[in-house]
Amino acid sequence: MTLSTFRTVKDLRAQVAAWRGQGLRVALVPTMGALHAGHLSLVQQGFTRADRVIASIFVNPTQFGPGEDFDKYPRQEQADADLLRSVGCSALYAPTAAEMYAPGFCTTVTVAGLSEDLCGITRPTHFAGVATVVTKLLLQALPDVALFGEKDFQQLTVIRRTVRDLDIPVEIAGVPTLREADGLAMSSRNRYLGPDERRIAPLLYRVLSDVGPGFLAGQMAGDLCAQAEKRLLDGGFASVDYVSVRDAETLETVPKWEGRPIRVLGAAKLGAARLIDNLGFPV
Amino acid sequence: MTLSTFRTVKDLRAQVAAWRGQGLRVALVPTMGALHAGHLSLVQQGFTRADRVIASIFVNPTQFGPGEDFDKYPRQEQADADLLRSVGCSALYAPTAAEMYAPGFCTTVTVAGLSEDLCGITRPTHFAGVATVVTKLLLQALPDVALFGEKDFQQLTVIRRTVRDLDIPVEIAGVPTLREADGLAMSSRNRYLGPDERRIAPLLYRVLSDVGPGFLAGQMAGDLCAQAEKRLLDGGFASVDYVSVRDAETLETVPKWEGRPIRVLGAAKLGAARLIDNLGFPV
Repeated sequence: MTLSTFRTVKDLRAQVAAWRGQGLRVALVPTMGALHAGHLSLVQQGFTRADRVIASIFVNPTQFGPGEDFDKYPRQEQADADLLRSVGCSALYAPTAAEMYAPGFCTTVTVAGLSEDLCGITRPTHFAGVATVVTKLLLQALPDVALFGEKDFQQLTVIRRTVRDLDIPVEIAGVPTLREADGLAMSSRNRYLGPDERRIAPLLYRVLSDVGPGFLAGQMAGDLCAQAEKRLLDGGFASVDYVSVRDAETLETVPKWEGRPIRVLGAAKLGAARLIDNLGFPV
Repeated sequence: MTLSTFRTVKDLRAQVAAWRGQGLRVALVPTMGALHAGHLSLVQQGFTRADRVIASIFVNPTQFGPGEDFDKYPRQEQADADLLRSVGCSALYAPTAAEMYAPGFCTTVTVAGLSEDLCGITRPTHFAGVATVVTKLLLQALPDVALFGEKDFQQLTVIRRTVRDLDIPVEIAGVPTLREADGLAMSSRNRYLGPDERRIAPLLYRVLSDVGPGFLAGQMAGDLCAQAEKRLLDGGFASVDYVSVRDAETLETVPKWEGRPIRVLGAAKLGAARLIDNLGFPV
């Protein structure tokens, strides 16, 4: 049995309308493909919130900057379709770039502030690309709920803000990060790591894990993050984009704990990979 | 009998959902209030395309620049509601600024190129304000069709582009400009004109009307527009922002006629008013 695959907005909408006509709730899981267990958990979580789950695969060019890995980003649609079918996914939406960006396309959705911080410092156009393509995918499918991984926590925050600000009629659900046995957050980009780098990689998780308890115990974010960055560099990371303690909802900086939930986020380079991860506290 | 008036997205959506449940088609006519016969013709046109027509009134602060007329823009909701009822309008949606822009709002929809030209030269943030608020209104109501006047032709073009690019599931209909007996395009801002200015104002319509035939006969746009600007200044206009000949679909400049439909657009200041108008050729 093959997975139903739609290439056009028209076909996607016809399927969603047919399900709606049967009184079914529909979930969307937007992805860039190269699926791993983290993506599959989004599909599985989708079925706890809806009757049908559509996964989309689109490697969106506008969220990659110059010199980033758009060209080498892994593409494996048949393997992805097999994985999606294995967890009972209802359909795959895999539009072409021409279907997503017709000639003359010139509209951008930007989320000020939030998009310019953290990963936005080194990737200044990334979150506008994300906000625009996710707005399009949500309005193409008009699902009841869309699910995104907490692994890309800033992205999730930007998407929540976009949906709220533009009144997109959909519920956004964040799903906890899946990790390898040694703590490394699952990511399609982990395949860029060589064997030695793969052994070093889980240090990012451990370092972020250690920031939280110290912060909740009253230590200053600046001191804890400086120590964390040093540990990453000493441990073999090539460079650190940031380690930062933020308000879990607004992503504003929190120098010292004041009782609200916080998120510790980090981004660092290791070989050909730029790894990101984050953890929430109190746990 | 009073007109049903909704102040919140929630109430608006409940009404639209109830109509949808009855199999009815819904039209939206977004306005800034201070209604005139042109707005009412949008409502009447709405009933040729849908079973129910909602008019919205929201004087959107983000589409006014510094020093523009946001504070003095006319507000007369009760009179507007009476006018809407007189043409059988089904409901009024009049949200507060707090309902439209909640604390922390920071998302903007921009349409590159199109927004920076013509009126965008003197009003650089105007069309981002328009594209953002119209995206919100469309996603709040999710009508089958939304109607906009051709009087604001660049706005209509920006909105068509936004809807196409973001895949907003709504049909956009442009409605021809209504004019006073002497040709002046109806506009809420005409009330800023004193009696002497009101006598001068229809010159904008006459001047734009005269550009078209010369252009179709092979004259250069540059020459015709320069003559038109001179006539406006000689006739009593204080200044001319532009008179321009454009492709009717893309609004790109057209120096000499090549057979595609064109639009002649103009904007000029007269007393406290900035008047805009446009005409399509061939008629």
